[in-house]
This record gives sequence, structure tokens and C-alpha cells, in this order.
Amino acid sequence: MDRIKATYLIETGLDPELAAQAIAGEQSSGTFVRVPGETDELIERFAARVESVSRLDSVSVPSLPGHRVHDRPYQRAEIAISWPIENFGGNLPVLISTLQGNLYELSQLSGLRLLDVELPQSFTKPFTGPRFGIGGTRKIAGVYGRPLIGTIIKPSVGLSPSQTADRVRQLASAGIDFIKDDELMANPNHSPLSDRVAAVMPILHEHAERSGKKVLYAFNISDELDAAQRHYDKVVEAGGSCVMVSLNSVGLVGVKKLCDRGELPVHGHRNGWGMLNRHPAFGIEFQAYQKLWRLAGVDQIHVNGIANKFWEPDESVVRSLRACQSPVGQGCDFPVLPVVSSGQWGGQAFETYRLTRTVDLLYLAGGGIMAHPDGIAGGVAAIQQAWSGAIAGRTLQQTAAEHAEFRHAVEKFS
Amino acid sequence: MDRIKATYLIETGLDPELAAQAIAGEQSSGTFVRVPGETDELIERFAARVESVSRLDSVSVPSLPGHRVHDRPYQRAEIAISWPIENFGGNLPVLISTLQGNLYELSQLSGLRLLDVELPQSFTKPFTGPRFGIGGTRKIAGVYGRPLIGTIIKPSVGLSPSQTADRVRQLASAGIDFIKDDELMANPNHSPLSDRVAAVMPILHEHAERSGKKVLYAFNISDELDAAQRHYDKVVEAGGSCVMVSLNSVGLVGVKKLCDRGELPVHGHRNGWGMLNRHPAFGIEFQAYQKLWRLAGVDQIHVNGIANKFWEPDESVVRSLRACQSPVGQGCDFPVLPVVSSGQWGGQAFETYRLTRTVDLLYLAGGGIMAHPDGIAGGVAAIQQAWSGAIAGRTLQQTAAEHAEFRHAVEKFS
Repeated sequence: MDRIKATYLIETGLDPELAAQAIAGEQSSGTFVRVPGETDELIERFAARVESVSRLDSVSVPSLPGHRVHDRPYQRAEIAISWPIENFGGNLPVLISTLQGNLYELSQLSGLRLLDVELPQSFTKPFTGPRFGIGGTRKIAGVYGRPLIGTIIKPSVGLSPSQTADRVRQLASAGIDFIKDDELMANPNHSPLSDRVAAVMPILHEHAERSGKKVLYAFNISDELDAAQRHYDKVVEAGGSCVMVSLNSVGLVGVKKLCDRGELPVHGHRNGWGMLNRHPAFGIEFQAYQKLWRLAGVDQIHVNGIANKFWEPDESVVRSLRACQSPVGQGCDFPVLPVVSSGQWGGQAFETYRLTRTVDLLYLAGGGIMAHPDGIAGGVAAIQQAWSGAIAGRTLQQTAAEHAEFRHAVEKFS
Repeated sequence: MDRIKATYLIETGLDPELAAQAIAGEQSSGTFVRVPGETDELIERFAARVESVSRLDSVSVPSLPGHRVHDRPYQRAEIAISWPIENFGGNLPVLISTLQGNLYELSQLSGLRLLDVELPQSFTKPFTGPRFGIGGTRKIAGVYGRPLIGTIIKPSVGLSPSQTADRVRQLASAGIDFIKDDELMANPNHSPLSDRVAAVMPILHEHAERSGKKVLYAFNISDELDAAQRHYDKVVEAGGSCVMVSLNSVGLVGVKKLCDRGELPVHGHRNGWGMLNRHPAFGIEFQAYQKLWRLAGVDQIHVNGIANKFWEPDESVVRSLRACQSPVGQGCDFPVLPVVSSGQWGGQAFETYRLTRTVDLLYLAGGGIMAHPDGIAGGVAAIQQAWSGAIAGRTLQQTAAEHAEFRHAVEKFS
């Protein structure tokens, strides 16, 4: 029987082997006492197994409260646990309940972080994965050999559909590839989604007819499921080309249901992610997290950006970008388009390209375009110039010397 | 315009008023620079507002990494932020994206915990809430004046449908009120949900005919949405009386869709909760969390138990129980049945009752029943005896002296 294997960082006042056994017990046939019926045969077939325990450093102060053993330093270790795939029944929520579930509450642990999960082909095979991903999104946009350049409508809330449409007209004329709603803008009274679709799509259709270029607009359809489905319908009916969902707020099952429709790329916004990831000894690594969403079928997923406005160090952002470029599992590619965002204005293109050597990304700038000193057209041009320069091996300084719009961006934002 | 108000614990190296302003800006009309169109009128109507900032203690070591200011101790404060309800459009995912969203990633903060949210009636009114809750669950079980007593089928994984049915027969004969699947047991090949329903329900129907007592069985229907709906159908067709979902794994929108069917009480398992709550300066308080699930319509929700097997202190469990007993908001009761669970065996009944003075709860014991020295019947009797004793004002010792089964439980588990 194939097995699913998860690796964790743990921190414990116990012998790490014992703590690993506690995890394996809690997440398969065990409870706090041995119960009748937990036969050796049943354990052999269904129990989770500790595959490895590698000790790391130890710390004197526990990362989390509630550890009930205090007689030694808190040992950190990287452990691997495996389960027979039979336990899951091809069920993503049960996979999550098994990998995470009650584990974060175990008093044997003062730290737990899910680092990665290895999924055998027998588990991933029934999933369709992203219907569009990198190739499908590029095909709609007609953009090859460079990142897609996009923006978020700002101010995030408060604009009417016609004010939104005005910005869309300017952005399209400026040559943008992709536009999205902010995650705070979904279906409020002052800008109902259907009115926004009705105001925006004719502008993009006109633009496509005139220029031959199709701009993607990711309408934020995050809502209760029936409403989200209606929003999706509206976008399809209006000839739209993308929808956005807030992954953590909508939840896995709802997101998968929307992805399964398969008519539009789904832009996955990961707001809420910080709560799951920011503490270094707690939570979940993006490496594991993004696999779940790719199995659900998300086509584009946020990874933050180099020199972002948030807390995340560049090194972590680069790891997230790389995670998106790696297969979900053996024989399961499920390519997903990484979305680089947060405080981006073009200047970060050079470091992003140097560190990742990829152009398979969607580069989003909100304020970096909207607040450019030469206006929206200047903002879009500056980012195009930055990426052309970065790909051609120019430095930020050389590119600024060559292009006025990018130079003005450097002057304002750097 | 009515406003939604959230309170947070923050920790910051900045002046806490400035940090509060950063939160308000990020979660409404702002971005990292002021953008054209962010007019005073728009800000006045849509921007989030800092309602209060109360300084607490300060700490020298930041709780989270990535804080970019280091010139002073990290000040903790309780702050309140409000938003006009117009921003949300009656949309639960957008409420979550606004209350949590990118906030946990802000580099201005080294700690953030959502403590509570106040929802005006104009926001809660369109929601139906729990269709069954406390009263509806009691009515099905025919249990009044005392807690419902329940159990989890153990071993969690590996039993066949007929082995499960055998346990159900014994449990029903022993007088149990409620039985549930473990969160790890959903729809695996060795116990497909439809086979489990087909094996279990006839036993419960026979028992009901013989004894007049209807035992609830919460089948774990956690799965992708279409599959979960089919599981729900199976339970309804077989005359079942309850379903269970893993709230965090299925996600809000999927859970709400299942609750909206309204034919069966939905038992909400909160596995994964530790990741959202265990760090004291990070995450979300149960007080806020449970309101979201009550709005979604969950009828029963886990709160852990006194002297549990996990990390959580009793004081926190008591607060969670009280949260379930309080209204969701003004004019919005949405009563939910708290589920007391984790390492329970009856001995905790006395302290649970002393600390909460309520019998409106579902008391779950897994190993505490299955591993009782007198077998399942003894395990159920011991818990019934414990709760009768607690409600009658007896002590644990008096109750143990009066009842052999409870005495044997004390000897094994305490």
C-alpha cells in the first residue's frame, strides 16, 4: 500500500522519538489509552508510522505554552510520519485533518510546523489540478517570454463600477496584462459584482478588438457558494477571463467546487496566510500549503514579493516561488502561476529575476502603478521597462538611466 | 451606517496608535502609498476607523519575527477597529478577509490576535444560523435537564462497517445519547460512508423502536462538496439524525452550504484549531472564531474539555463554553451546543459543572468509555453517574463511593 509522508519540525521537552510516536498515535488508530479492538493487525494495516527523527538544536524557552514536561531543554527535530493512503479515501479535507488536525494541540509539543508532504501518484491521480495554470493563463493573455504584469484596483474599497471601469480603460491603454479586484472588494452595495462586470467587460472587449490584446480581469467572486457560483456565471456570460477567490476565507471545498467548473482561471489570494506561517516553530510552510491548493485546482497563487511591505524575508519568498515551479508529486506536475505582490513597483524585478531565474510569474503592482508620478500609463511602462531590463541582464541603475518612466518610479518608490 | 467592530491584541515596536492606523489603512482604502481617487469623501464613507487603543504591558523580545522597528520595547495594546457594514455586502468570506486578511503579515506588528468581533443586527439579520442548536439537538435525543453523553468510535480508523455497528449496538444498549465518527474516519475503502450508514442506522432504528430512545450518530461527511452532499443524502435517506464536518478542513463556504440544507444537525469538529490559537500573542480567540461558525449555521461545536489531553488550560476551556452560551450579537442568539471532548472519562464532570453551571453541553468520551474496565456499558454508566452526581452537588469522592462503575473509572483513569 502506498503511503503519504509528511515532514514536520517539532519542539519538545520529551525524547523526540516519543513525541513523534505521540503524533503518529493521535493521527491514526490511537487515543489517550489503548482501546479494545486496536489489534496488532489493525495497527499494522492502518497506523501511522514514524519514518525518521533527526535532532536539530535545542532551546531553553518553549515556543508555545502548554508543554507539560519541563525537565530538559526543548529539543527541536525534523521528523517524518507516514500513513497508508487507504486511510484517506481520496478526500482532501481528511488529508488536512490528518496532516494538521489535533496535532497543534498536543501537550507533548511546544512547537510544530508542517514542512512538506509527499503524495504518491496513486493519491494524486484522481485530481484534475489547475485547468489553466501557467500555460493557460499565458494563452489567454497572449504573453510569452516575460512575466505577466498586473495591478490591483486601488483604492480597494469605495470606487463605483464606473470609476473602476475608468481605471480599467486607462490600464488597458497603458498595456497592462492583468487587473484584479482587491480582496476587500467583492459584492458590496456600492459596487455590486454584476454591475462591475457589466461596466468593465465591454471596455476590455473593445480594447481586445482594437488592439488584439486580451486583458485578464480577476473579479473577486469570494462569497457564499451559491452567490459565488452566480458571480462566476456573470463573469462567464460577460465573456470574462478570470475570477479571484480568497482561499483561506472561502475554504478548500468551496474553492475546489469553483475550480472544478473549469471555464475560467482561478486566481488564488492567500490573505490570512500570515496566521498560518509567521511563527517559525508553528504552523505550516508554503511548500506544503500550495500543494493542497494545486490539488484543488487553483491556477494562480500569491507568494508575496521581494522587498515586500510585509514581514516576510526575501529568502522565504524565493522558496515559495520555487515551490510553485516544482511538481506536486511524482507524475503530478499541476503547474501553477506564482503571483508576486505586496509593495511592488518594478524596482524589485531585478532581484526577483536574479534570485529565481524565471519569467513564469504574474507581477502585481497596485500603488506602484496607481501612484506613479506619470500616472497609470507611466506606472505600467515603468514595470515593463524594469522587467525587460532585468531579463536582458541590465542593472536597476542602467535601466533607470535608459527609461524615464522607470527612473521616475525609482525616484518616488525606492 | 452601522459598523462592525473588532478588538485585537497587538504587539508593536511603534507607537500603538500608529500601528492601529496601519491596520485600519491596510484593511480598507489604503495601500503602501496614497493613491489618486482616495478622496476625503471616500475615506469618510468607507475607511476603517480606530475606535480605541489601550496600552497593556511591554516585552523586550518580539513574539513574531519580521518586525522592522527595534528602537523601543514591544508595546502590547488592546485596540478596536471598526468598518461600515457597507464594505462587506453580507459576505462571510469578505468579513474574514477583512478581520484577518493580510494583517498577520504586517511588519509594523510583532503580535496580533483577533479577540472578538461585534456584529450589528443589520449584518446578522440575513443569516439563519443553527437550525437545531441546543434545543433541536435535545429534542431529537429526548434528553433534558442534563448534558447529552456521547462517544467517538475508537479505534479511529481501521474498523469495518460491521465492527462499527457492533460497537453502536453495545453503546445504544448502554444508554448512550450520541455517537460520532472520529475526524480521521470519513469515506475510506475499508469503511465507505454509505456502508457505514447502512450498517449503523438499522441498529439505531431497532433500538428506538424497542426503547423509545433515539440515539444520534454523527456521520463524518467531510469530503469535497459534491461527495459531502451525497453523504448527507445517504444519512437523510437512512433516517439518520446528525452529520459531522471538520470545520477548518472543509472551510466556511462548504460548511455553510451543508448547514443550509437544514435537515440534520451539523456537528462542527474544530480539528486544526490549535494552529490558529495556541500562541498567546498570535491568531484568534475562540470568542471570535465561534461566531463565524454560528453565522454559518453549525449546530454543535467543539470546545475541548476540563483537564483535557491537549495543551489548553481549563480557564480557556471555560471561556469557550461561555462564548457558546452568549448571543452572537444584539438580537442574534443563534444558540450552539458546546461539545466537551478530549481525554474525558466522567471525572471532569464535577469541575466542568462547578466552573460553568450549565448542563447545555454534549459530553464526549472516547477511550473513557471504550477502555472502561467494565466494558462499554460500564463506561457509559460511569459517565451518567458522574454527571448525576455533579448536578446533585455530590463530590467526585461521594459519587465514586456510591457507584461501582464510576469508582472503577476513577481507579483506571484518574
